[in-house]
Amino acid sequence: MTTPIEDLGAARIAEPDEGISVEELRLAARNHGMPLEALRYDVTPHGLHYLLIHYDIPEIDESSWLLRIDGLVNLPLVLDLDELRRLPRVTHTVTMECAGNGRARLSPRPVSQPWLDEAVGCARWTGTPLAALLDRAAVEPEAVDVVFTGADHGLDRGVEQDYERALPLAEAMWPEVLLAYEMNGEPLLPQHGAPVRLLVPGWYGMAHVKWLRRITVLDHEFTGYQQSVSYRMSKEADEPGEPVTRIRPRALVCPPGFPDFMTRQRIVDAGTVPLRGRAWSGVAPVLRVAVSTDGGTTWQDARVHPAPERYAWQAWDWEWTAAPGHHELSVRATDASGLTQPVDQPWNRQGMSNNMVQRLPVLVRG
Amino acid sequence: MTTPIEDLGAARIAEPDEGISVEELRLAARNHGMPLEALRYDVTPHGLHYLLIHYDIPEIDESSWLLRIDGLVNLPLVLDLDELRRLPRVTHTVTMECAGNGRARLSPRPVSQPWLDEAVGCARWTGTPLAALLDRAAVEPEAVDVVFTGADHGLDRGVEQDYERALPLAEAMWPEVLLAYEMNGEPLLPQHGAPVRLLVPGWYGMAHVKWLRRITVLDHEFTGYQQSVSYRMSKEADEPGEPVTRIRPRALVCPPGFPDFMTRQRIVDAGTVPLRGRAWSGVAPVLRVAVSTDGGTTWQDARVHPAPERYAWQAWDWEWTAAPGHHELSVRATDASGLTQPVDQPWNRQGMSNNMVQRLPVLVRG
Repeated sequence: MTTPIEDLGAARIAEPDEGISVEELRLAARNHGMPLEALRYDVTPHGLHYLLIHYDIPEIDESSWLLRIDGLVNLPLVLDLDELRRLPRVTHTVTMECAGNGRARLSPRPVSQPWLDEAVGCARWTGTPLAALLDRAAVEPEAVDVVFTGADHGLDRGVEQDYERALPLAEAMWPEVLLAYEMNGEPLLPQHGAPVRLLVPGWYGMAHVKWLRRITVLDHEFTGYQQSVSYRMSKEADEPGEPVTRIRPRALVCPPGFPDFMTRQRIVDAGTVPLRGRAWSGVAPVLRVAVSTDGGTTWQDARVHPAPERYAWQAWDWEWTAAPGHHELSVRATDASGLTQPVDQPWNRQGMSNNMVQRLPVLVRG
Repeated sequence: MTTPIEDLGAARIAEPDEGISVEELRLAARNHGMPLEALRYDVTPHGLHYLLIHYDIPEIDESSWLLRIDGLVNLPLVLDLDELRRLPRVTHTVTMECAGNGRARLSPRPVSQPWLDEAVGCARWTGTPLAALLDRAAVEPEAVDVVFTGADHGLDRGVEQDYERALPLAEAMWPEVLLAYEMNGEPLLPQHGAPVRLLVPGWYGMAHVKWLRRITVLDHEFTGYQQSVSYRMSKEADEPGEPVTRIRPRALVCPPGFPDFMTRQRIVDAGTVPLRGRAWSGVAPVLRVAVSTDGGTTWQDARVHPAPERYAWQAWDWEWTAAPGHHELSVRATDASGLTQPVDQPWNRQGMSNNMVQRLPVLVRG
């Protein structure tokens, strides 16, 4: 399946004062974030949801597309798109975030897709539950992992591969996991995995395999590149590190006032400034959002609204009495499991699962 | 209309070895290009068309949106969205490109939105011709410029402004110019100017004012920031420079084979490699596309297909007999006016209207 072309080196860490490279910029130009003013929408409109495409968007003819379910099953299945669409339909509103969100704010900076704060979106995904199809395929009792293979093909640190990720069987059988074929009420766009992608509510984006073409049940743990090399949290290059799984809590503020084009510095008028934003966690509902207007020295509780569905993001709001001068806004989510966003960076070599608080400079005019 | 906050300095030029700054990255994370594999689509799908949003996407209530046409007219008009949609409908397929495309490949690099090659898209735009509305408003004979004001508001080099651009009256009266309210058969997405934007086929993107709210006829030349300061071509900071107008010819190749994740280097197998791409020019139809596989030393003519409409992009194809080793692909368009893409950079301080040929490294495997 994989053909090494060059040595599998460790991911590079930038030098302390090294600017963003053209290679990182090339990734940023194609894999876009969600402009933060789009935090205003309950559901992120088409084209504003963040995107991370490891290789190319594959060219897929929907009329000949087939999904194979095989491996450790008694009744291997092959389904076409019409068959999949005739199965029971479910719609979930789900917040999705890239595991590398915030990476380019780390110091030293892991060299990869250089996200700042914006690798997120919340969409309505429609599809059919995976569990029923695994039941139909009659998974054997020795099953351990379920591997999801996409049609996107490329090279990463010397390893040629189709994008592949696995879930433990119990996670794959969880009723919320969908084979999704619609986003916001329309067929998936090419860049979001058309015709069918996996949806694993609560997990970081790498689990939601796009352009799905095969599901394989294994009697052992999957050790493919995207599982055992990429998407790990370690401090040292020779440590295997912890796997990336569920989304840690995060809150973001919808930038108030208006921006300067180049610096994105915000300008607001002194007085009452209504602040609003969203918060989410894949671990447990967000119970608390605190706001700081002085760079994290003091914090005040915002009003947090319940999510319309467990994995949709939660709205929050707070009224700021803004005095003239330079301020730094931060927001900090805490979920029902007790997880809270760190004010200082939780650094790891790949910049994964990093949920350090946002810092937004605002100039208040008198 | 404009309130200076700080001095209007010249746009900054990066030092020779200066990496991309976090500010440039912040623009790249929100203003995305078109992944170049999307050159495969005749019409760019939702969410893949390039975007340049100077300030924030404004929050507009379509039910109370109004368009005012005033200034040097005998019969000022105010229209709501229903009235606009009841006027004659026209659809044009149009290639749009940012005037700053290619800026981050220049040396030294003008510091602004850091595009590489990908600030382009081709969409089907539906709207109503502007000329009929200007006729209805009875423009006075002394009219010189027609100013288009958007609802997007911000600061640029110390000047607070609503985004505004003008066209000379004769250009504004050109029958191809539309007030567009649909893109690819659906209502405009928020990020593309909903509910209504200007469409000026053949011009760089800055002319197609988004979130249109007012059209004002002047008896003199418009000298607003986006007309007389930004979107100019000059070598020195104190020169006014030539204005940016129509799109210069450009061809791009749809990257063959598959990519390496981080470097985006392409890998193909030796043998026959079909190459394809698109070419366009806002000045005149593209007559010739030449391909080089040796970094611009030798060129071969590709087959160029006619455009389905004057301002849609034109497909081209060419068959490469690829020998093992490292190669650099370039493509070069020439239009019917005789304009051709430069192999060396046509440098100016803002990196505008730069159509230097693409350079795509490809590793051919034996």
